[in-house]
Amino acid sequence: MADPSPAGQSLSRRRFLTTAAAATGVAMVGGMGALVGYELAAGGASATSGTPGAPASPAPAASDAPASATVPFRDVHQAGIATPAQDRLAFAAFDLTATDRAALGSLLRDWTVAAERMTRGEPVGPPEPEPLAPPDDTGEAIGLRAGRLTITVGFGSGLFDERFGLAARRPAALAELPRFAGDFLEPARSGGDLAIQACADDPQLAFHAVRNLARLGRGAVVMRWFQLGFGRTASTSSAQVTPRNLQGFKDGTNNIVAEDVELMRDHVWVGDETDQPWLRGGSYLVARRIRMLIESWDRTSLGEQERVIGRQKATGAPPGGAAEHDPVDLAAVGPDGAPLVAADAHIRLAAASAEGNERILRRGYSYTDGIDPQTGLLDAGLFFIAFQKDPRQGFIPIQRRLAASDALNEYIRHTGSAVFACPPGVGPGGWWGDTLLG
Amino acid sequence: MADPSPAGQSLSRRRFLTTAAAATGVAMVGGMGALVGYELAAGGASATSGTPGAPASPAPAASDAPASATVPFRDVHQAGIATPAQDRLAFAAFDLTATDRAALGSLLRDWTVAAERMTRGEPVGPPEPEPLAPPDDTGEAIGLRAGRLTITVGFGSGLFDERFGLAARRPAALAELPRFAGDFLEPARSGGDLAIQACADDPQLAFHAVRNLARLGRGAVVMRWFQLGFGRTASTSSAQVTPRNLQGFKDGTNNIVAEDVELMRDHVWVGDETDQPWLRGGSYLVARRIRMLIESWDRTSLGEQERVIGRQKATGAPPGGAAEHDPVDLAAVGPDGAPLVAADAHIRLAAASAEGNERILRRGYSYTDGIDPQTGLLDAGLFFIAFQKDPRQGFIPIQRRLAASDALNEYIRHTGSAVFACPPGVGPGGWWGDTLLG
Repeated sequence: MADPSPAGQSLSRRRFLTTAAAATGVAMVGGMGALVGYELAAGGASATSGTPGAPASPAPAASDAPASATVPFRDVHQAGIATPAQDRLAFAAFDLTATDRAALGSLLRDWTVAAERMTRGEPVGPPEPEPLAPPDDTGEAIGLRAGRLTITVGFGSGLFDERFGLAARRPAALAELPRFAGDFLEPARSGGDLAIQACADDPQLAFHAVRNLARLGRGAVVMRWFQLGFGRTASTSSAQVTPRNLQGFKDGTNNIVAEDVELMRDHVWVGDETDQPWLRGGSYLVARRIRMLIESWDRTSLGEQERVIGRQKATGAPPGGAAEHDPVDLAAVGPDGAPLVAADAHIRLAAASAEGNERILRRGYSYTDGIDPQTGLLDAGLFFIAFQKDPRQGFIPIQRRLAASDALNEYIRHTGSAVFACPPGVGPGGWWGDTLLG
Repeated sequence: MADPSPAGQSLSRRRFLTTAAAATGVAMVGGMGALVGYELAAGGASATSGTPGAPASPAPAASDAPASATVPFRDVHQAGIATPAQDRLAFAAFDLTATDRAALGSLLRDWTVAAERMTRGEPVGPPEPEPLAPPDDTGEAIGLRAGRLTITVGFGSGLFDERFGLAARRPAALAELPRFAGDFLEPARSGGDLAIQACADDPQLAFHAVRNLARLGRGAVVMRWFQLGFGRTASTSSAQVTPRNLQGFKDGTNNIVAEDVELMRDHVWVGDETDQPWLRGGSYLVARRIRMLIESWDRTSLGEQERVIGRQKATGAPPGGAAEHDPVDLAAVGPDGAPLVAADAHIRLAAASAEGNERILRRGYSYTDGIDPQTGLLDAGLFFIAFQKDPRQGFIPIQRRLAASDALNEYIRHTGSAVFACPPGVGPGGWWGDTLLG
């Protein structure tokens, strides 16, 4: 939950950002209903980079956009990954009840049309519906502005079983996660054939998006689980302030930022290395519902909290540092010869290893789901979301280290888990999954 | 969930608002950390009206205040009632484990100090805590601005049982609600000795407030239930736009607005009529968790939805009207002689009756708590909150009519219920409950 980045990385990152700012082609148009677009927003597949491997998008708009801002739906990559993390989340996983490929394609086409309309701030159906028919849109978003809504689709491994004739197109990287030490996974909060991640600065827009896609999918999908996230716990843009998670620490200081096109290409976007060309330009989404045992945490001394995390609580600075973005020196020792960042500190184990250089783009949210009926304690924590080029080089090795030794394990429980392959962005005339099913 | 107001009332209300605007003494100071105050904010008990009965506050500030805005904690009435409804809610009910009056008083004093600090945007404890001790504040609100946070306390009937020697001070109006037809109440979502309503424009602030009061209360209270509300479903100020609930309808068009000092005095604030002088200047909070069967609702035709509610969905106008605030004529009939507002329409039954003139100040929020594990359908709806001078002249008669005949009952289920007496505001040097316990 803190910083999976190697020592010293923040320095080079900050140097990059200084120069990247000038190259960021963000177009902003003021006023209600105005579009805040990527420079090449409507260009779809035309906005590829000149380098081999993954295609690259221009850098996204800043996060303090007005409530009227819209994020373009069609682009090289799906929105909701490199988009500066919005404040609120609604996430749903679905099981497919459709039994053939035509029905699956029909669902994804319908979802694409509806999702594009909603991300523009428009209702799913016409605003003057037929009185004798149910409205095409459930209505709770009427009058709200687009609020930077993004809707991102993911495909679970179930899509590639015997039902849809897609077994040969299953990416090798879309494997079930291994069982990690200390997993307390609940089947009802895990897995799913399809995922919808809806993010917006207004939670009503995110809820509305999931609800309306679920409604459109009736007969083809049933919702398997749903998670509301009330506050972002990561920044994915250099323009954003690092937020705090429910343990009170700044979370994601060294997260990948979308402006860092090279890191995005090397660690987030699926490129030519994939065994499944249909997924090129996509990414893998790993979701983990991580309950925090906040009552135990809150009884822990400040010194112990800082030792467990490996950062100072007030500032986010590393031990011995003064400011959040001071470089982390994992080799530094104190006057007593002990490492300043403890051997089992979260940031040491979450940091990219020298061998693997594992980096992920985190995009998680704080959640609370009321009281745990068994204990009377708050069921609250982090709905962790990470995007990566390949979970086998991203989340899995990081989580293996954390599960084995992280001092934080005493204060958290992983209660839900899912992996989805997110297809590339939708080009002009295209639809979600057209590279797989079209 | 729609409009408990008699026909024609909106006209006189709008006339009132036109003249009230000039009298509204709102002081706004720009810039970060600035206070947006009531004119007589810090004056506490000095801001009484000249009329007998309930004391009155000046009108509250507009709802589009900056994120830095603070709502004064000390005032004639508690904040969070007349305060223009903030966008997000965290609500908790607690059972007291404390067994004597001294411990109860100590809890309420501690809560008062902490609540006042948090509503100022300050942490519960000093920002430079002792490393060997747990931090006094859980930390997730550090760096956030006050976000118009209000924290409102309520006393359940359990406070007046044999434990604390307060039986003689129990208000007659603080009775358990009768069982209504069609109640599906869950004990784990109902009742409680104490309530905390935290409202803010940032949900992290509201969550933080409840969590920290729960933490401070350890040993004296255990949390009984908790509810997050992600979007307000009522306006309580004439400056606010009417929001839509999860049925897609504008909700609260004819709600009492705080600027209407006469309605607030007559229907919301406890006045001289109370049998318990300690409650004068307070109010009664009725909370109902109303699950909406949104999948059924979404399959219903637009015409039927509008007939059930008694308003047009797109505009919020009454049948035959053109605009949201057009007066509702419950006696009007169509060309076929049938009433324009059906006999079992929600707004007809929720409207104040000619005999009782029941009016309540609604301050509810949309909620979603994931999937109903028994059905796989979304557990979402309205966390209804209403304030009133006396539930026996407010919520109870209204809900009796609704439970008996409301066409909406086919699409909703009341799953939680609680009533609390909210003491008056805290004056200089005072604390929550000092008029009861001090």
